[in-house]
Parts: sequence; structure tokens; C-alpha cells
Amino acid sequence: MGEPLLHPDRLLPAQPEVRAIARRLYDEVRHLPIISPHGHVDPRMLLDDPPFPDPAALFIQPDHYVTRLLHAGGVTLDRLGVGEGPLPADRARAAWRLLCENWHLLRGTPVRYWLDAELGDIFGITSRPDANNADALYDRIAEQLAAPSHRPRALLERFGIEFLATTDDPADDLSPHAALAADPAIRTRVAPTFRPDKYLEAGRTDWPDLVKTLGEAADVDVSTYGGYVAALRQRRRHFVEHGAVSADHSHADAYAEPLGGREPERIFRRALAGQATSAETVAFRRHMLFQMARMSVEDGLVMTLHPGIYRNHHPETLHRYGPDTGHDIPVAVEFTRALQPLLAAFGTEPGFHLVLFTVDADVFSREIAPLAGFYPSVYAGAPWWFLDNPSAIREFQRSVTEIAGFARLSGFIDDTRAFCSIPARHDMSRRLDAGHLAQLVAEHRLGEDEAAGTLRTLVAEQPKRVFKL
Amino acid sequence: MGEPLLHPDRLLPAQPEVRAIARRLYDEVRHLPIISPHGHVDPRMLLDDPPFPDPAALFIQPDHYVTRLLHAGGVTLDRLGVGEGPLPADRARAAWRLLCENWHLLRGTPVRYWLDAELGDIFGITSRPDANNADALYDRIAEQLAAPSHRPRALLERFGIEFLATTDDPADDLSPHAALAADPAIRTRVAPTFRPDKYLEAGRTDWPDLVKTLGEAADVDVSTYGGYVAALRQRRRHFVEHGAVSADHSHADAYAEPLGGREPERIFRRALAGQATSAETVAFRRHMLFQMARMSVEDGLVMTLHPGIYRNHHPETLHRYGPDTGHDIPVAVEFTRALQPLLAAFGTEPGFHLVLFTVDADVFSREIAPLAGFYPSVYAGAPWWFLDNPSAIREFQRSVTEIAGFARLSGFIDDTRAFCSIPARHDMSRRLDAGHLAQLVAEHRLGEDEAAGTLRTLVAEQPKRVFKL
Amino acid sequence: MGEPLLHPDRLLPAQPEVRAIARRLYDEVRHLPIISPHGHVDPRMLLDDPPFPDPAALFIQPDHYVTRLLHAGGVTLDRLGVGEGPLPADRARAAWRLLCENWHLLRGTPVRYWLDAELGDIFGITSRPDANNADALYDRIAEQLAAPSHRPRALLERFGIEFLATTDDPADDLSPHAALAADPAIRTRVAPTFRPDKYLEAGRTDWPDLVKTLGEAADVDVSTYGGYVAALRQRRRHFVEHGAVSADHSHADAYAEPLGGREPERIFRRALAGQATSAETVAFRRHMLFQMARMSVEDGLVMTLHPGIYRNHHPETLHRYGPDTGHDIPVAVEFTRALQPLLAAFGTEPGFHLVLFTVDADVFSREIAPLAGFYPSVYAGAPWWFLDNPSAIREFQRSVTEIAGFARLSGFIDDTRAFCSIPARHDMSRRLDAGHLAQLVAEHRLGEDEAAGTLRTLVAEQPKRVFKL
Repeated sequence: MGEPLLHPDRLLPAQPEVRAIARRLYDEVRHLPIISPHGHVDPRMLLDDPPFPDPAALFIQPDHYVTRLLHAGGVTLDRLGVGEGPLPADRARAAWRLLCENWHLLRGTPVRYWLDAELGDIFGITSRPDANNADALYDRIAEQLAAPSHRPRALLERFGIEFLATTDDPADDLSPHAALAADPAIRTRVAPTFRPDKYLEAGRTDWPDLVKTLGEAADVDVSTYGGYVAALRQRRRHFVEHGAVSADHSHADAYAEPLGGREPERIFRRALAGQATSAETVAFRRHMLFQMARMSVEDGLVMTLHPGIYRNHHPETLHRYGPDTGHDIPVAVEFTRALQPLLAAFGTEPGFHLVLFTVDADVFSREIAPLAGFYPSVYAGAPWWFLDNPSAIREFQRSVTEIAGFARLSGFIDDTRAFCSIPARHDMSRRLDAGHLAQLVAEHRLGEDEAAGTLRTLVAEQPKRVFKL
Repeated sequence: MGEPLLHPDRLLPAQPEVRAIARRLYDEVRHLPIISPHGHVDPRMLLDDPPFPDPAALFIQPDHYVTRLLHAGGVTLDRLGVGEGPLPADRARAAWRLLCENWHLLRGTPVRYWLDAELGDIFGITSRPDANNADALYDRIAEQLAAPSHRPRALLERFGIEFLATTDDPADDLSPHAALAADPAIRTRVAPTFRPDKYLEAGRTDWPDLVKTLGEAADVDVSTYGGYVAALRQRRRHFVEHGAVSADHSHADAYAEPLGGREPERIFRRALAGQATSAETVAFRRHMLFQMARMSVEDGLVMTLHPGIYRNHHPETLHRYGPDTGHDIPVAVEFTRALQPLLAAFGTEPGFHLVLFTVDADVFSREIAPLAGFYPSVYAGAPWWFLDNPSAIREFQRSVTEIAGFARLSGFIDDTRAFCSIPARHDMSRRLDAGHLAQLVAEHRLGEDEAAGTLRTLVAEQPKRVFKL
Repeated sequence: MGEPLLHPDRLLPAQPEVRAIARRLYDEVRHLPIISPHGHVDPRMLLDDPPFPDPAALFIQPDHYVTRLLHAGGVTLDRLGVGEGPLPADRARAAWRLLCENWHLLRGTPVRYWLDAELGDIFGITSRPDANNADALYDRIAEQLAAPSHRPRALLERFGIEFLATTDDPADDLSPHAALAADPAIRTRVAPTFRPDKYLEAGRTDWPDLVKTLGEAADVDVSTYGGYVAALRQRRRHFVEHGAVSADHSHADAYAEPLGGREPERIFRRALAGQATSAETVAFRRHMLFQMARMSVEDGLVMTLHPGIYRNHHPETLHRYGPDTGHDIPVAVEFTRALQPLLAAFGTEPGFHLVLFTVDADVFSREIAPLAGFYPSVYAGAPWWFLDNPSAIREFQRSVTEIAGFARLSGFIDDTRAFCSIPARHDMSRRLDAGHLAQLVAEHRLGEDEAAGTLRTLVAEQPKRVFKL
């Protein structure tokens, strides 16, 4: 091995003059608390604080970033325990061995980078995993996982997470969040996020049931369109009362267009009866996304939007292992036309915040940056999912900020299902931001004082401002 | 403040070895005269030579680059005097203060870079604007604006502008251009540009009136399609006689496709009567764009094309402040199929020049460079508007020249409404071109003698060749 | 001249620290044998081993990369002998002179880089071509071409080509391949590639004749759909028996979708009778592409796909000079939706290999890398044609590997019609790969031992694994 697992200058610019600047900038923010306004941590884990069962449960099973790369390399998902609960000891160890043996598959990817950081920073591992040391590493990690120091709450504290948003079903009663908020031992503010996607997709076969569930949760009669809207509004209020700051939306496209007259009522009835056409349910979903924006104007929930994913591309894998198993694939997406009605109506509404994410990198510079560079409500969401790697982040940094400036960025979003990768992901972002700003300083486009101020703002203030913390 | 406002090496590559080459290359072209084949300077300003009223009128009101960033940051456009004439002294000063207080909003953008250059080079400002020095800077600039040295003509001379194209309505009599051409005190060649967009959009509600205006200007009966075409041809001739070198076109898409038989006549009549369908008027516009190419073959006007903008995205802002107020937003665009009929007909016509611009950066490498790399008539227009920032320009430099070579570029186009930004924009381009060529030299892909020759050609010869100066 | 034609560090990173690493990496692979799994060398040339007639026949006439750039620069294709056989001596010399006189048109392009390498490495030329030395260079090259050392077989040996795939018509009897395989003097394995495009395009006016040709070659009755499919299957078997490892497909789009019931039979009959609609023949082609995937699962031929080209954009040039004359122009393309049915059916089939190429660079990171990062059958093809330049390759390296890792790459593909450019193209790829990996090492994202291993794998093992050599 030529290199230690974690070089102090990793990811900083290679050029010595620029690296020196980047190091100074990075040093000022590396230890600042983490703000995580969007992610997928289970609040029950923080409430119950059980020890993580084993390295596979921590690093492999829940993380489709890891499992998809192993799958592409020929490892079937059943061997990794995807879609299963805790594995028997021998299977957990076997899954871990598969990861270590195939460590080379991760080269060049951010997954490798995050895992290196997790192993090094959290578990004190200093050697690169491979077939030979797999068992020893497994034992070493498992031993620590059994200790109080590596339970979820202890890690949450150690990671320095000041704010953590989860992602939740509108029908959820949010009792874990209430319990966490009431617990003085938890210093992190843990907030739910309103994620209503499936309740707006009237074309789903289970939509009538979903509407019923929603009505029950809201204690509202949902047999009419008006009742359905009232139920959604009630659930949002419930979320706001439990500390939610945002509502998160992901559909096939970004269109948000209100229907006129009695159309919403008419389609609602037909869809409930299972009689709506595909064109009608799409129109209804776009109408409802517009209504979600209106409700955000009313109740203050920040609206986040990330369309353009072909979900569950491989039906057999969905059938055997469930969703979120690595085969959601990006498609091209459009924002300029799609969001025009929404922005014409609410784009300059005081207090309305709309954060736009994409997995189609082109639209960041072509459409999102120009929109964020005019509308005071629009922010360019951080590059995430498929774009959460150094090259895409650097491209984003350059192209978006040169059109919209730094003040129109959302700040970093980790969006992860892998709890231990949270600090690694934020640290990567800080290093890359420091590198980008150092480059601007080195090209005499920004003073170093301005760069330092910008970096501090990006890390500590911008997410609070954008997500109203 | 760590940095002077204007570092001599700004924007050159940060790496010392490459910067040294870039500096040598840049030094050879930095003082060459400016060729500006497309922009938005008002010829009356040069004719009448009035002093600029105040710093707001110079730097803020006409420049949607500046005002959109302030607007996104929460400053309403009325406070900036957008869409108004000269402001009362207190409002002009207040607008300037808003700019200075919000200077941080411009960080990382080319707007900041241009303003730095304008303040430094033209007004001798050496400190970074902020809330504290806003008034002092205002006074200092205002004082200079009152002096003969900072009137439009003096600046035109000082900027070293050899050729300056304005953008003009086909019905314009071009008398200011005639007067400028007759004035021996003006050493810059100031040429009009034929911009017929609205006269080709038969779907506009005011189109019948526009056709009438055109007919009056041309003194041609425009009650028939043939008369309408004759009027356009006459106006082009009028422009050519007044020194025009190009005709500029911007529509929703790039399609240029001739209609057969009596279709043009038929749609023309229906549109004049306000009875044409949207499909018909789109077909008519595409037909007319094809005719514009034919006329360019005949009369020699260089055809420039820049489709793909969603104009006036926020209707309320349009209503209150007018067009060109910062909310034109790019959309994806297509050239390969759209221009095939035009290029099949005229692509190898001797003397025909077609310069393709885009605000959808992808098509530069995917479509424009391959087209320019085959058709002798096609040139890749410089990256402008949303792409006129260092990162987009560098991407353009790399991706387009590696497909089509340097000889297929239009040379730099400033396209600005901010008079004082012209030299700053051209200087930025020269620095970035020097940096790009220096990189090729440093990677041993080009001799330094070739790089120097290429840079000189790009700055001094290519725009003259492409725009037939 | 400031620079020798071929600097030893050309194309390596300019930064000294990174270059030093890159040099070490490159030195380990620079002399490894060439694997060329896709290209356009004529097998008869290797069989008959005639001397190349002259420099124009070698460098200009067959290479649309060269001729399109000269054409764009104003040189008509007839002066370059495009579409003709060997030229009379005076015309060959005149064509060569045109290339040398216009050498500046190639600046910054990979064509220039390859030609420099070919002239320097193969012909010992040390001075940059221009109008003055054109004749001397011509004579020097012509002299060497007449010598046994520069005949095709001698060059094949000298280039160190271990495997070379040609591109062949399904009706070809492949006798040259058989003869080459039987010849002990040829140490290169020369394999045919099954390229059935036109036989699947039922909308072509010559399609009934093509089907007939196919039937004759296969000795199968092709009057029914079943016979047609059987004939294709037989021809694939014939190719496999002659050493083919892949089937190559290029259509207007990437859709591969099976038709149900009797639809294939029905459309087949209508198309044979010249009565099929355009929608029917498109559906049929997409159906057949799906069948090609099925056959690849059966017979093991690697499936390569490269859609999204507007062929023969300039009809007059097609008419006068034939196809492949520099005016095939990229269009935007889509893979995620288009390939879903195919991947749902065969994406995890053991042994199925699908290599996806594109000339729409965006889809590499947006769609191909995510697909290759999940499906064990999918590989990201190397950036070729319009993307075979350093900037596009570097962008590909960064964006694809950070999503899918290095193990999902096809390895380099030269895809050339210019025989002498094969080593230059592979050498460029090795230099750029070394540079990319050196950058990862310099940023402490990869150990240098890992980088060296990765580079060796990319050059020597990955193409063999992907193409089953």
C-alpha cells in the first residue's frame, strides 16, 4: 500500500499553490456542526438506540450505492442481504467478505471515498480492505458496534449533527419525532419531512386505498376532492406542528399546472372509481403539485423538487428485493416550461422557498441556475444522487455559481440512507467547496477573505436560511 | 481586503508554468482594437453624445445581468429603476447603494468580474464596493461622468472599438447610422444589424400592424405574400446600404423549412386576417427563416441564429417593467434536424455565412461543432448569455475546437446592453483564450508560435472574416 | 518551430507533480499490445498486402475526420479524391499539398495529434507540414510506402496489434477472414463483426432485395418472417464460426421493444410488399433489435449499440461522394426508457454483454453510467466519434467512472478507417488514462499501486473480458 487510507489533503486541489489556499479555507469549516435538511435516517433508530447488528447491516444492506456496484460486478443481491432484515452471522460475514474482495470495483467512485472515511474516522481502520483482511476487519468493526460508543445516539453526537431531517409518510403520526423532541438527551434537532408523492399519483392502483389512509390519518372525509385537499392540508399542519420544515416531491416530470373549474373534482371522482385515464391522472398530479406550492406559500414548508427518475428499471429486482435497490435510472428532464405556471403564480411570493434538485446535470446550468438567478424563491439544490461525486459537484460549482452566484445555492444535502456516511459526505462537500473557492482566489477572481466568508456561509448559514431553521 | 480590485494575472491559469505561457500570449493581443459584431448599444447615444446621467443609469438600470441577481437576492426591481428613464438623484443614489450593499451576491459571477474591471479601468476605483463606501464611490463616479472624458464618444475612442454593430428594427430608417457614418469625428465603424424576428412571427396579435409598418417603411404594397417578401428584401437592401453586415434571428426553435406551392400565400392571408392556427403560424415562421437564409445568400448579410429562450418567464415582471428584465430562461434546443433543410439548400453556397449561437451549452459540442466542422458556411458563435462566464467559455473552448478546430469559431461577441462592459468582456475573452491556448502548449499539443498565431487570428482576423468586415 | 513534432510528455497533465505520476503510470502500459475490438480496416488489405499507393490514399481519402475539416475550411471534396480509388500521381500530390497548406485548420483537434504521431512515429518526420515542405514530405512518405517495411502486414506487426475486429456485412462469406486465420504469418487475430443494420431497416426501398441477399447467403427461404429470422441466426452462426466476437448496431434511436402475437409476421409481409407504413417499419426495427439481443444471449456475440446519428446530412455530398464523407451529425438520444424492455428481459442474463456507445455525451453520465452501474451485462463504451478528443475523453473518464467505477468500462475502441492512426489513437487513450489516474492519486483518492493496476487492466484485460477474447 502506497497511501494511508485517509490523507489529510484528500480531494483538495493537486496544485500546491491552490492547495495551500484550500487548506486554509477548509480548516475554518471542517469542524462546524452538520446541517442535514434532507435524508433517510429512520427516527426509530435514534429513538430506540439499538446497536447496529453487524458490519453488513451498517455498510451494505441499506446502501444501494454499495449494492448496485457489487451487483454490476456480478454479485447477486441475495448474497448481500438486500431487502432483508439482520442477517445470520455467517451470511453477514459473507456479505462483508464480498465487499472487501470486490473493493477494486469501487475505485474512483465516491462510495469508495465515503467508505474509506467511515472506516478510518469511525472505526480506526488504517488498511485497505481486501480478501485477506476481510475477516479481521469484520471482527474489529463488530466489536466496536457492540460498544456503547457506536450506538446510533452516540454516533449522532459524535458526528456533530445539529439538524437532521428524516423523510416521512403524510399518514405517519410522527410519534417518534415527538418522543425525540421531548428527550433532553438528544441535542440534535430531528425534524420530519412531508413526502406526499404517492398520495398525488391518482394513476396508482392503490391510490383509492392511499386516499382512505390519508383521510383516516387526518380524520377528514375524503370522499370529495375538497375533503382530499383538506386532508393533505391537515397532514401538512400536523407535520409543521412536529417541526417539519420542508415538503419533498419527486414525480416523473416537473410540471405543476392548475386545472380549471370542476376538472379536479371530476378527475378525483373518476380516479377514486378507477376510471381515470392516464392523461387525466397525469394532469391531476400536475394540478396537485401546483396546490402543494400554494400550500407551501400558506404554511411555510420549503418545497423541494427532484423529478426525472425512472424508478425500478428492472422489474425482477423490484419483485425480489423491493424498491430503492439500485436500479432507479435518470432520464432527461425539463424545468423552464414545466415550472412556469407555478412560478408565475408564486415565484415572488414572500417566504416561498422552492429548492430544485435534478439528476440530469445539464438542467442545473441551463435552467435551474437561470431560474434561481431571477426568482427570489428559487434555490439550486445541491448535486445529489448520481451527481454526488467530485466531478459532478465541481461542474455544478462552476456552472451554477457563475450564473446565479453563491447566494442561490441550497447548501449541502446528503440525502443518504447510510447513517455513517453523513459526516463523510459533508466533509467531502466542504473539501470540494474549499477547493473551488481556492481556485477562484488563485485566479484572482475573489479575495481570500471573501472566499472564507462564502465557505462559512455555505456550510453554516445558507442551509439555515434556505430551510428556515 | 486581501486583493487589489484588478490583479494583472486575473483569469489566467493558476498553475505557474501555464500562466507564464498565457501571459506571453495575452500580452500580444491585450491592446488590439475591439471588433464587436453583435450588441445592443443605442446609436443615438453615440450620435448625441450626452453625458451618462448617473452611476445607476450606467451600471444598473439597463443591465439585466445586474438587476436579475439583485432581484433574486430580494431587491425589487422598482428600487433599481428598471424600465424607467433617468432617476431622481436620491433614487439613483439609493439604487447604487443597493448594488454596493449586495456586492457579495455577485461573487463568482462574471458580472462581478466585469464591474470590477469597469470600476477599476474606467473610473480608477481601487476598493471593493460595500455599504460603507457606496456614497463615496457614487460621488467619485458621478463626478467623472460629468466630465468630457467619460461621455459616450470619448469612451468609445478610449475603448479602442474598431467596429460596433447595433441591433435594429427593419422599419428603422437608420438615420442615426447615416449621421454617424458621415461624421469624421467618429473613427469607429458603427453598423446596423437587421433583426426581423417579430415581423416573421405571424402568430403575434400585433403582426398585421407590423406588416403594415414594414410595408410603409419599404414603400411596398404588403397586402400579398409577394409584397411582404419584397418589403423584407427592400429593408435588407436598405440595411446593406447603411453598412449592415448581418441579420440576426431568434425564435423559439431553429427550424427553417420551406413551405410548398401556395401555402405561404394562403397562411399569410389567414394570418393577416387573424385566422391562422398556431400550427400554421409556426410553419410560416419556419418558412420565412428559410427565406431569410435565401436572402442572405443573395445579399450577403451574415445570418446569425440564437434560438431556445423562453422569453418573459414571469408575466407580472413583464407587465410592470417590460421585456429584457432578467427572466428570459433557456430551454433545450435542437439544430441538427432543424437546420437540415436550410443546409441542404445553402450549406455549401459560396459566401453564405451562418453563425449559430445557443444558450443550451450541450448543443455546442453535440451539434454545432459537427455542423461547423463540415459545412463551410457554418460558424460556431461565441458562448454568450448565460454561457458568457469563464466555466462555460472554457468548456466551449475545449469541446468545440477539438471537434471543429479554431478556424470555425466566430470570434468573440459581447452582446451587451452595458456599454462600459464592452472592453471588460473582450478582455475576459482574450484572457481565457490565452489560458486555453497556453494549456495546449503546456500539454505539447500546439507550438507556442501556433498558439500566438491562433490567438491573434481569433481576436483580430476571424471576426472580420466571419462578418465580412 | 518552437516544439518538436512529438514531445515525450504530450497530453500528460501539465502540472509537474501530477505529470510525474502520470509518466510512471504511462510507462508501464505504453508498449503493451493493442486490442482493437471495433474498427473499419478492410481484411482484404491485410490478406493481399499491397503497398499503399501514395500519401493521399493513406492519410486523406479514406479519413472523413481529415476531409471534413478541410471541406469546412473551403476545400472541395473532389480535390481530395473523396469517394475515388487511387488518384493519378499529380492529383494525389495536389491533395497532399492541400492538407499541408491547411495544416492550421487542424490545430487543437485530435486529428492533428494523430497525424503528428503517424508522421513522426511511422515515417520519421520531424517538421511540421506546411506549404513549403509539402512536396518534400510527400516524396519522403511515398518512398517509404514503396518499401516492404511499410506494407500493411509489416505495419500491423510493427503496431503490435494483438486483436483486430473488422466490420462486415452479414451476407459476406468471410473468406478473407478464413484465409487470414489460416495464414501462420499473421500473428494478429483478425475477427469479423456482424453489422446487420440495413437488414433490419424494413423502411429502406432496397430492403426486399437485402432480405433476398440475406436468404441467399444463409441458404434459407426468407419469404416468411420465420425464415428471415432463421437466416439472420444462420449468418450470426457463420460469423461466430469465423471468429466474430460481437454484433454491432446503429440505428436512429436505441429502442428495442418486442412486438406481440402475429405483428412481426404481418409487418414483415407488408414491408416485403413495399406497403408498410413508417410507424410499422420503425416498430419492426425496434422489435428486431430486441431479437438481436435475444440472439446475443443465445450465441454469445457481444452486442454493441451506438444510436443517435443523422446520417448523410448533406444530400448533395452523399450523391456525389457517397456515405461516410463527414456529414453524419449527432442528435440527442435516449437510453433509459428505450432499453428498458431489453434490459428487463436480458439485463441479468449470464454471459450477455451489451456495450453502449453514444455521440451525445450527456447520456454517458446521465443514463449509460447508471445502467452500467447496476446491470452486470452493461458496459460503458469508450467515447468515440466526435467524443474521441481529449476534452470529451477526460469528461467521460471523470463522469462515468465516478458513477460506475472503472470495471464497467469497455476499454478503448479506436473505430477508425485510417489504418495508421490505430497506434496513435490507442497511445492517446493510454496517455489520457494515465493522466486521469494520476490526478486521482495526486488528490489522494487512489493509491498509486491501485492506479497502476487499474491502468493495466483498462489496457490489457478489460477489452478481453468485455469482448470475450
